[in-house]
Amino acid sequence: MKKDLGVQPYLFPMPTYMIGTYNEDETVDVMMMAWGGICDTKMVALNLEADHKTVANLRARGAFTLAIPGSDTIRQSDYLGIASANKVADKFARTGLHAVKSEKVDAPVIEEYSLTLECRVVEFQDQPYGLRVLGEIVGTLVDEKALDENGKLDAAALNAFVFDQAQYGYYAIGEKLGKAWNAGAEYTRK
Amino acid sequence: MKKDLGVQPYLFPMPTYMIGTYNEDETVDVMMMAWGGICDTKMVALNLEADHKTVANLRARGAFTLAIPGSDTIRQSDYLGIASANKVADKFARTGLHAVKSEKVDAPVIEEYSLTLECRVVEFQDQPYGLRVLGEIVGTLVDEKALDENGKLDAAALNAFVFDQAQYGYYAIGEKLGKAWNAGAEYTRK
Repeated sequence: MKKDLGVQPYLFPMPTYMIGTYNEDETVDVMMMAWGGICDTKMVALNLEADHKTVANLRARGAFTLAIPGSDTIRQSDYLGIASANKVADKFARTGLHAVKSEKVDAPVIEEYSLTLECRVVEFQDQPYGLRVLGEIVGTLVDEKALDENGKLDAAALNAFVFDQAQYGYYAIGEKLGKAWNAGAEYTRK
Repeated sequence: MKKDLGVQPYLFPMPTYMIGTYNEDETVDVMMMAWGGICDTKMVALNLEADHKTVANLRARGAFTLAIPGSDTIRQSDYLGIASANKVADKFARTGLHAVKSEKVDAPVIEEYSLTLECRVVEFQDQPYGLRVLGEIVGTLVDEKALDENGKLDAAALNAFVFDQAQYGYYAIGEKLGKAWNAGAEYTRK
C-alpha cells in the first residue's frame, strides 16, 4: 500500500558535497551542498540559491573545488552547511580545518577531505527554479590512504556519509553489496 | 599526501535512481540513472544520453517516475541499468517486477520500489555536454512500511544503496550518524 506525501524533494540518499571557494580577501569559504553532482564524465552541476556567498565567489573567481567529507569531519562539515558566510565571515576558520591553494584552479583544497575535484566554472544558468552553475573537472585529488593496491580510488576508504532530506539525518555508507553492471547478469541470459 | 588521478567523474556516493516511462505500445521501460536527482524543492534533473529509449518515451509522453530501488531489487535494478530497451524491448518484463499506472502522470509506478516521485517533464535542455531533462515533482508515493509512527518517511526503511563510479560497485546505506543541521552546533557558539 503506497501513501501519497504530496510534492516533496524526497530522493534518498542525497550526497553531501563541499564547495570550496576563495573570498575577496583570500580567506576560504566552504559550503555543503546536496542538490547537484556529476552530470557528465567531465562535468559537475551545482544548484544553488543565488544569494550565497559561494555564488559571489564563483562569479569573481570562476573556479571552485568540490570535495567529499568523511564522517570524521561530520561536525565541521555540517556546520559549513548551516552557517552563512554572509553572516559569519570566518566560518571556515572556526572549524579548524586546513586549506591549501589548488595548483590548477583559483580555489582552495581542504586537506582533511580525502577526495577533491578541481573545477573551473563553465557557465551560470538561469533555470526555471533558480541558479545552476556548470563546472568542468580539471583535476581529481585523492588521499593516498584512499587508493587501493592498484592505485584506484577505494570508495569505502572515504568514509563518506549521505543526507536524508525527509528527517534531516546523516547516514554512514555501509557494506559493499557487489559489483555493479554484473549483478543482474541472469536477466541478460533470459 | 594527495595524488592527482586526472579528469575523473569520481564523486561518491552516487545515487541510483530508476526512471520509469511507457513505451509506445504501453509496455513499461525502466532505466537506472546515477547522474542527476533533486535540483530544487519541486524539481528533479536527469542528465541522459539522447539516444536512450527513455528519452524517446519522455518526449512522447512528457512524464516519468523516479524511484529509489531497495537492495532486495539490486539484481533487477542493475540489469535495468545495463540493458538497453532499444535492443531488449522486454527488459522490464524479464525482471519480473510489477507496475501500475500513476494516477497523476502518464508513467508507470513500480510496485517493488518503496519511494517514487511522479514527475511531469518541464523542458528538454541542450547542455554543453548533452541532454538534461528537467522535471516537476507532482506526487511522492511511499510504501506504508517505509513510514515512521508519525507518518514521515523513514529513510532507513528504504534499504537504499549507492553507486561507486570508480570501481563500479554498490554499497548499502549504513548506520544513522545523527541529526543534520545540528551536528556542528559547537561552532555556532564560537
